[in-house]
Amino acid sequence: MNDTLQIANKTFHSRLFTGTGKFSSVQTMKEAVFASESELVTVALKRVEVSNHADDMLVHLNAPHLHLLPNTSGVRMAKEAVFAAQLAREALETNWVKLEIHPDPKYLLPDSIETLAAAEELVKLGFVVMPYIHADPVLCKRLEEVGAQCVMPLGAPIGSNKGLKTSDFLEIIIEQSNVPVIVDAGIGAPSHAAHAMELGADAVLVNTAIAVSQNPVEMAKAFKMAVEAGRIAYKAKLAPERKHAEASSPLTSFLNT
Amino acid sequence: MNDTLQIANKTFHSRLFTGTGKFSSVQTMKEAVFASESELVTVALKRVEVSNHADDMLVHLNAPHLHLLPNTSGVRMAKEAVFAAQLAREALETNWVKLEIHPDPKYLLPDSIETLAAAEELVKLGFVVMPYIHADPVLCKRLEEVGAQCVMPLGAPIGSNKGLKTSDFLEIIIEQSNVPVIVDAGIGAPSHAAHAMELGADAVLVNTAIAVSQNPVEMAKAFKMAVEAGRIAYKAKLAPERKHAEASSPLTSFLNT
Amino acid sequence: MNDTLQIANKTFHSRLFTGTGKFSSVQTMKEAVFASESELVTVALKRVEVSNHADDMLVHLNAPHLHLLPNTSGVRMAKEAVFAAQLAREALETNWVKLEIHPDPKYLLPDSIETLAAAEELVKLGFVVMPYIHADPVLCKRLEEVGAQCVMPLGAPIGSNKGLKTSDFLEIIIEQSNVPVIVDAGIGAPSHAAHAMELGADAVLVNTAIAVSQNPVEMAKAFKMAVEAGRIAYKAKLAPERKHAEASSPLTSFLNT
Amino acid sequence: MNDTLQIANKTFHSRLFTGTGKFSSVQTMKEAVFASESELVTVALKRVEVSNHADDMLVHLNAPHLHLLPNTSGVRMAKEAVFAAQLAREALETNWVKLEIHPDPKYLLPDSIETLAAAEELVKLGFVVMPYIHADPVLCKRLEEVGAQCVMPLGAPIGSNKGLKTSDFLEIIIEQSNVPVIVDAGIGAPSHAAHAMELGADAVLVNTAIAVSQNPVEMAKAFKMAVEAGRIAYKAKLAPERKHAEASSPLTSFLNT
Repeated sequence: MNDTLQIANKTFHSRLFTGTGKFSSVQTMKEAVFASESELVTVALKRVEVSNHADDMLVHLNAPHLHLLPNTSGVRMAKEAVFAAQLAREALETNWVKLEIHPDPKYLLPDSIETLAAAEELVKLGFVVMPYIHADPVLCKRLEEVGAQCVMPLGAPIGSNKGLKTSDFLEIIIEQSNVPVIVDAGIGAPSHAAHAMELGADAVLVNTAIAVSQNPVEMAKAFKMAVEAGRIAYKAKLAPERKHAEASSPLTSFLNT
Repeated sequence: MNDTLQIANKTFHSRLFTGTGKFSSVQTMKEAVFASESELVTVALKRVEVSNHADDMLVHLNAPHLHLLPNTSGVRMAKEAVFAAQLAREALETNWVKLEIHPDPKYLLPDSIETLAAAEELVKLGFVVMPYIHADPVLCKRLEEVGAQCVMPLGAPIGSNKGLKTSDFLEIIIEQSNVPVIVDAGIGAPSHAAHAMELGADAVLVNTAIAVSQNPVEMAKAFKMAVEAGRIAYKAKLAPERKHAEASSPLTSFLNT
Repeated sequence: MNDTLQIANKTFHSRLFTGTGKFSSVQTMKEAVFASESELVTVALKRVEVSNHADDMLVHLNAPHLHLLPNTSGVRMAKEAVFAAQLAREALETNWVKLEIHPDPKYLLPDSIETLAAAEELVKLGFVVMPYIHADPVLCKRLEEVGAQCVMPLGAPIGSNKGLKTSDFLEIIIEQSNVPVIVDAGIGAPSHAAHAMELGADAVLVNTAIAVSQNPVEMAKAFKMAVEAGRIAYKAKLAPERKHAEASSPLTSFLNT
Repeated sequence: MNDTLQIANKTFHSRLFTGTGKFSSVQTMKEAVFASESELVTVALKRVEVSNHADDMLVHLNAPHLHLLPNTSGVRMAKEAVFAAQLAREALETNWVKLEIHPDPKYLLPDSIETLAAAEELVKLGFVVMPYIHADPVLCKRLEEVGAQCVMPLGAPIGSNKGLKTSDFLEIIIEQSNVPVIVDAGIGAPSHAAHAMELGADAVLVNTAIAVSQNPVEMAKAFKMAVEAGRIAYKAKLAPERKHAEASSPLTSFLNT
């Protein structure tokens, strides 16, 4: 199937993006990431030994098909995010950045104002910016206008595993967006990932649900298949919801003859 | 993966059961059924030329891996269902029957009382009985007690494509059942099928959602993958829903050093 | 407002039915029942000293506007239910009975088969039968046919406080029923009760949600108001769900003049 | 009940705020507003003849208990909103303003960035600012920090009547907010309004659902009651959702004695 996803200068065959956090070991993380067949993997800058190129995790994820996506998780404002992105660019030799700004340590919800400001600045500095944000359709358009190469609206509070609580808003975002829409946060089960793809999302990012499963490698496979299933269903077009069954002719007449 | 499903004397490698109704052509139906990799396909008795063994549809579905499951769709009471099952046994040379009794032609919802009565009688007559019923946990136990080899509770009104509206009850049925639980009716998208499998259902039956899609063959593939994804996720164990994110250490301290 | 509910020979001004179980004291129960302005209150037969007319609880609920509705909670089959109803008729001098048959002590879900059998028998014995059942539209029609004076489908598993999980089925039941439809079980908040009434239910029965609240008397008032609100809304007709806002003319042109 | 709501210098006895749009006639609007017992009614600036104090609508809504709340509906950016608010202050002699900035005429969703900027400016200009926004917890805190006297997060897209689709986020907002939280947009039924209040919202704003009902005056009463019911339930504390019924002792032992 020739159904690839283009973001900036990269072409992705997989529409499942993953992460590296919360795994019980680096070895399990590596195996799960490979099993997912993901081609884009977020790495928290704080987990990277920025001064040490031979960082353990990075060695493990060294593969031609795999792009690392540093994220700014932990920063609280635009200025910190820009600084973190610059550090990451040096450390990881990539100008891609997943922009996460969340001042609240309890729910880790994104700050719309600071995220837009940082996105605008980072685009000017030559970054490929992938912003994690609320399912806020107007904000998504603004991010697109300042040059973000995609938008990453949340499905539910991060780490909640509740699925697409924001689906009414995601549908509007997908309808209006000219850049790829990647659902991030809240996806706790393969069925949620399939749901996002069925709505027309271009990709999903899943980390916690794989990492904290009892069997992360198997769960990674399950997500891979569910994302593909949802994508195929989107292209083949789902039947609409309906109130009635279509009445079929009763067998009775047949039985009575 | 050695994760098969046993019903009576048959072993299934696929946990996706399909149907033959509502396709635009017999050719499309055949291709979709094969693409689904389903090993059990329901056939409405009224669509079969019972006096003619060379019935067109049956020829098309003639394959070693494929078992035909005649259904009694259209009957309104136990007596008619028993008669229909007997006709089907002769016509299709199988003692398997999907028991569907729905007196109401608008919503095609099952009749609990007649279904239990017919199931009991059909078991005595040597049938392998697969009853389509409400997501009624007590009824499911009763059907198991009279010898039904599985139960097939609905997820939502048939043809509605609304997904697992009955999930609270399906969870109880799955918890209590000693026979396979196959979710039937209401599954309108691969994400719904994955959801059923994640809950612990043993299989799902999907017909309308494949048949009325714009591309039934592709949709059949999508359902196949989603069912497998849901099954793998069930075995690998999903993370629970949670209210908070797990607070991660702020990057700020790092940035400030 | 002259919007009364008729069941058998009784006319109800209140569409909120209540119960007597799970209260912390008889005094609190009494106050909550009176605050609810309910005119029909279920009493578990097992809580009544059947040989003693001066039973404490009955004395407390002795008021002209209040009808006692003995229920058969705890029985496991039709035969037991009929016997219990007869005991109740003698003890409480009423031929009304809330028919509850639930063989499973964990989820207390109703047994469709035994409930229909008992309803038929009790109607013949001159009882006004109010059966607690699944949200099973075909079963509801059958109960109506054997003479049940109303049907009492559940909204969610009893005691779960989850609200109207069965709303898709309740809508069908309400559309098809010729007897009053009273939503029983699952209603855990006034908003759930209002929802049931908005769908067109004729009444709701609420017990646990009032009894186990921190302030049962206040909660009883809240339910009373919510039921009335939902009923008024049903009669005044709700606006349908829509996808878009209706575009309003921009203020901009005005500002620019 | 002495349970009032304080916003800036005003004390409200009613927690239902209403609007004046979409009614079939001014007379119906007036009657519905009075029936709602609302004390705060939004008025679109564009509907007011700003140069004419004797504007028809304003005369109708002239009552001691009723405060007019001009809204900036139709503006697309902060600058326009500030100008509109100033016009309204002159025309209606009030420094209260409902801040609505929605650049998209199809879904009328709020612009987070412009809303925060306008709120900050308007507070400096001495306005009591009530901002209509996404259910974005971080944005709500920022609005509080710049001096907004309340926050008005949406429950669902405006005019959709879908209820509290954002409830997971509303719960976080309510938990974190130091200013009143008023749920605005999406409330299409009294049950939705009750739900918002049960979650702990301080008030709700309802316009479309009353105005386009077949009987706006009755619907206004229904909302009034539902809001009160939800508030009482919140204070009396709802029982939590649970998975099981609490097993009660079987009646059988009693019957067998």
